[in-house]
Amino acid sequence: MDIWRVNLREQTLQREAVPEKWDHLGGRGLSARILLDEVPPTCEPLGPYNRLVLAPGLLVGHMLTSCDRISFGGKSPMTRGIKEANAGGSTGLHMTNMGMKALILEDQCRTDAKARSGWWVLHLSLAGARFEPADDVAGLGVHDTAARLLKRYGDKVAMALIGPAGEMRLAAAGIQSLDKDRVPSRIAARGGLGAVMGAKRLKAVVFDDAGGKKPPIAHREAFKAAQKVLTANTLDHPQTKTYQEYGTPAMVQMCNALGGLPTRNFSSGKFEGAETISGEHMRDLLLQRGGESEPTHACMAGCIIQCSNTYGGEDGKAIVSPLEYETIGLLGSNLGIADLDTIARLNWEVSDLGLDTIDMGASLGVAAEAGLMAFGDGARGLQLLAEIRQGTPLGRILGHGAAVAGRVLGVQRVPVVKGQAMSAYEPRAIKGTGTTYVTSPQGADHTAGNTVRAKVDHLDAKANIATSRGAQINMAGFDCLGACIFAGFGFMVKPEVIPELLHARYGWQVGPDILQVLGKETLTLEREFNRRAGFTAADDRIPEYMRTEPLPPHNSVFDASESDLDGLFNW
Amino acid sequence: MDIWRVNLREQTLQREAVPEKWDHLGGRGLSARILLDEVPPTCEPLGPYNRLVLAPGLLVGHMLTSCDRISFGGKSPMTRGIKEANAGGSTGLHMTNMGMKALILEDQCRTDAKARSGWWVLHLSLAGARFEPADDVAGLGVHDTAARLLKRYGDKVAMALIGPAGEMRLAAAGIQSLDKDRVPSRIAARGGLGAVMGAKRLKAVVFDDAGGKKPPIAHREAFKAAQKVLTANTLDHPQTKTYQEYGTPAMVQMCNALGGLPTRNFSSGKFEGAETISGEHMRDLLLQRGGESEPTHACMAGCIIQCSNTYGGEDGKAIVSPLEYETIGLLGSNLGIADLDTIARLNWEVSDLGLDTIDMGASLGVAAEAGLMAFGDGARGLQLLAEIRQGTPLGRILGHGAAVAGRVLGVQRVPVVKGQAMSAYEPRAIKGTGTTYVTSPQGADHTAGNTVRAKVDHLDAKANIATSRGAQINMAGFDCLGACIFAGFGFMVKPEVIPELLHARYGWQVGPDILQVLGKETLTLEREFNRRAGFTAADDRIPEYMRTEPLPPHNSVFDASESDLDGLFNW
Repeated sequence: MDIWRVNLREQTLQREAVPEKWDHLGGRGLSARILLDEVPPTCEPLGPYNRLVLAPGLLVGHMLTSCDRISFGGKSPMTRGIKEANAGGSTGLHMTNMGMKALILEDQCRTDAKARSGWWVLHLSLAGARFEPADDVAGLGVHDTAARLLKRYGDKVAMALIGPAGEMRLAAAGIQSLDKDRVPSRIAARGGLGAVMGAKRLKAVVFDDAGGKKPPIAHREAFKAAQKVLTANTLDHPQTKTYQEYGTPAMVQMCNALGGLPTRNFSSGKFEGAETISGEHMRDLLLQRGGESEPTHACMAGCIIQCSNTYGGEDGKAIVSPLEYETIGLLGSNLGIADLDTIARLNWEVSDLGLDTIDMGASLGVAAEAGLMAFGDGARGLQLLAEIRQGTPLGRILGHGAAVAGRVLGVQRVPVVKGQAMSAYEPRAIKGTGTTYVTSPQGADHTAGNTVRAKVDHLDAKANIATSRGAQINMAGFDCLGACIFAGFGFMVKPEVIPELLHARYGWQVGPDILQVLGKETLTLEREFNRRAGFTAADDRIPEYMRTEPLPPHNSVFDASESDLDGLFNW
Repeated sequence: MDIWRVNLREQTLQREAVPEKWDHLGGRGLSARILLDEVPPTCEPLGPYNRLVLAPGLLVGHMLTSCDRISFGGKSPMTRGIKEANAGGSTGLHMTNMGMKALILEDQCRTDAKARSGWWVLHLSLAGARFEPADDVAGLGVHDTAARLLKRYGDKVAMALIGPAGEMRLAAAGIQSLDKDRVPSRIAARGGLGAVMGAKRLKAVVFDDAGGKKPPIAHREAFKAAQKVLTANTLDHPQTKTYQEYGTPAMVQMCNALGGLPTRNFSSGKFEGAETISGEHMRDLLLQRGGESEPTHACMAGCIIQCSNTYGGEDGKAIVSPLEYETIGLLGSNLGIADLDTIARLNWEVSDLGLDTIDMGASLGVAAEAGLMAFGDGARGLQLLAEIRQGTPLGRILGHGAAVAGRVLGVQRVPVVKGQAMSAYEPRAIKGTGTTYVTSPQGADHTAGNTVRAKVDHLDAKANIATSRGAQINMAGFDCLGACIFAGFGFMVKPEVIPELLHARYGWQVGPDILQVLGKETLTLEREFNRRAGFTAADDRIPEYMRTEPLPPHNSVFDASESDLDGLFNW
């Protein structure tokens, strides 16, 4: 495996041996290491000194169930700290088939008179790198863009691409990958890496793994044996059945019962319309509607959980795929919308623009509080999204996410940490996830360490400090492996399978705590980047109103002590 | 002298003895001390925990020439650090006549159903505090507001008031005071303290000093003797004559000759239209036009410099008062506008909205770079300002100042430090002022330590570190005294006059270096507030492009070393 380094200004590719200190890392941890080594932490995120890193996890390449995730990394234009966002789909798999340990995109494509184009596709194959003008797809949504590029490059390629939002360098823009059915539905959504790619004037990176092969395995039999254990444990896990049937929308009823379902710009944790936006209701609806509707769908080849779905309308035609819990929480209850069809339409627009549904739901919630839409008015929500597509001033305000929208519109209740919006777990009711929001170097992000399933009193701030710490370490570890959280359930049944897999794949002798070792190293690297970028404990704070305004129905505030928060990473 | 403390929510006034550690401070230093003692540095600037402090300088009250300035302080919604902005006019004088060492405004006025009003006037007199509904002046510009309030409260009062921008809580909103002719032309402009006042739902604070008297003088004869020296030295100073004749616009030709006149969004330091926006040209024009035009005008009673002016149009009717150099640089050359009448009209609009001309000029420059106006198109500039008055999304973007405008509009060349726009001294050509921009706890601000008049090679970064340090210390000292920089020229002829005046006024025995002692204490307090608010060396940095893009005509970059910058305050 090599490091592939592309200088966008010079249009050159170098394949480099992996430096020793990078070798044991993958995914999120490798991205953090590269950024710390190569990107000035105080640089302008949308300027030439920022780099965009693509790093498949350590276990990517062999279709282990739910372990083929790809990490995108760079300095975030949203948090202005380090950023990693990962996704399923086929990009990671193609990269490892081509022998890439990581891809580093340096500088920015030229757009001056000497350049032949304003937008570019970077095409990578075993033959090397090719830059091709992309002006014909500039301005197109991700769905049309993907369709055209698949026609141009053949439907066997993988790709990472941006929508109009990334082109506009909006801070809530993500980067999309194709799922196994070539739909650009797998978004590395958080923190604006799509804007970083847009600032580099790259519309898409295409990966053609023709002639490639799976990465080598040191001990094939041991690998197979471990894989078998992982598969069995994952299949047996009670959560797997829930996610197979309902997908992530299973969380709607659970969070609502905990009083932690964000409702009307995070003003309540209980939504009167929870029933009609629940996973149970959605499953019934999709089974009844049929057609393209699918309550169960795999995003990666080989996944046995298949937590994804295709949401079809009354006519059975697909509206969006997938419709996830966090999207339902942010574009649904958070906007006072109790109708899944409306939420699905909002979701499709946000996704086609290439935006993060979480930050956009929070942004629209802030817009509603500013009087720009009535809660519950989905048609107005669609109009506001159309403003983004048109690139109007209001569209730009909203497309930068909730923090910028709150600041510009003069709203005080803005559910963000480090400039990034909270997900669909209210921190005043689910305080462990709240602790993760506050302390994660990534900004508010449930995937950095969600505690909603932990057996803990979610209202007890003190008890949740250790819960959040453990979850953050484990999740950072899984993000190094390329494992999705649901594979994590399987791993945690028998954690020895992790060192067994790493030994079988690489021949490494690693201890039983390798997941935690990788997780801690990753968090330490990320915190060091942020420290150099100017972050302090003052950035590890919940918004002021969440400490003072009680949240119904528990009428609780976020009351983790500052010393507990500041000591969370003292290991 | 007492501390007057008003709780806006409870509508109560308390007069408190001055705590010992506050007693030796005034103006900017006192404001810093109060904020550090009473405001949580991580609080939301527009929330209830921020306080607005009004503190006259130590020498205010006796019409010493140019020494009656008033400091406004609070946590800035623009820099998110400590903020002080001071102004001339009559507010400081009325406060000291009423026996106020400082006024502290706590919490926010109620606007719920129990409140009788959405906006309030706070009326202060020796009889105490009165809250009166201000809904009749809500939405009015500062000129109409001042006129109405003068009619209501009598034309002997002083007042501090905000315009529509402060009501909208725009981050570039300032607080205006009346000049000696009752025009609300003296703005504490920088850093958004008008938004802090707006968030408190205060349209104006009216000071009626009826029955008050000048503050006591310990040694009257010594005071008179020192005052005489100060007056003579100020009058004799060669700069005084320049400022009497041309006012601050004298700087246009000087900065242009230095290659440091911001032109077309800080892309050049030389403006081909400098001649027609110069102080010399302006003086000729005003003398020729007559009528209400005045090339020389005092902003405070008793000022012998009279650097202000009234800019009249072709018909001799006043367009705006005053028209200052920094406004000409930012709303003129920085927008490619070479016509003083156009600049004056832009200035009036900005002032009537209650906005900072510096940040608005920089904001419009960024808008021009984003393609929203052509450089040189003043009519389009006026349209953009009209958007602010209408409160449109674009208006809100621009009204928050250059940093927010740059971020939302996706512009990379944004001339700000700590979120605050640079003034009309290009840091790549006048590197001492640039060093002040970078290191001042106030964000980019020429009044924190301008070095343009220093005898130093302005292009030599190393040589300018000490120049900036000295200027920052002295300016912080003057801001404690209530002295304007032009009185500073007079003081520096014979610095002993400062301890003499403080001894005569208060009976204090202070050393010959009292100006520097006060200055260093002030800067230390401010840096400590910022440190607790989360600021680090990473915030003491010039925008990336100013280190890499050479500025014509010298083709110089800002090249002060990071270690020099980081060591500047090691005294």
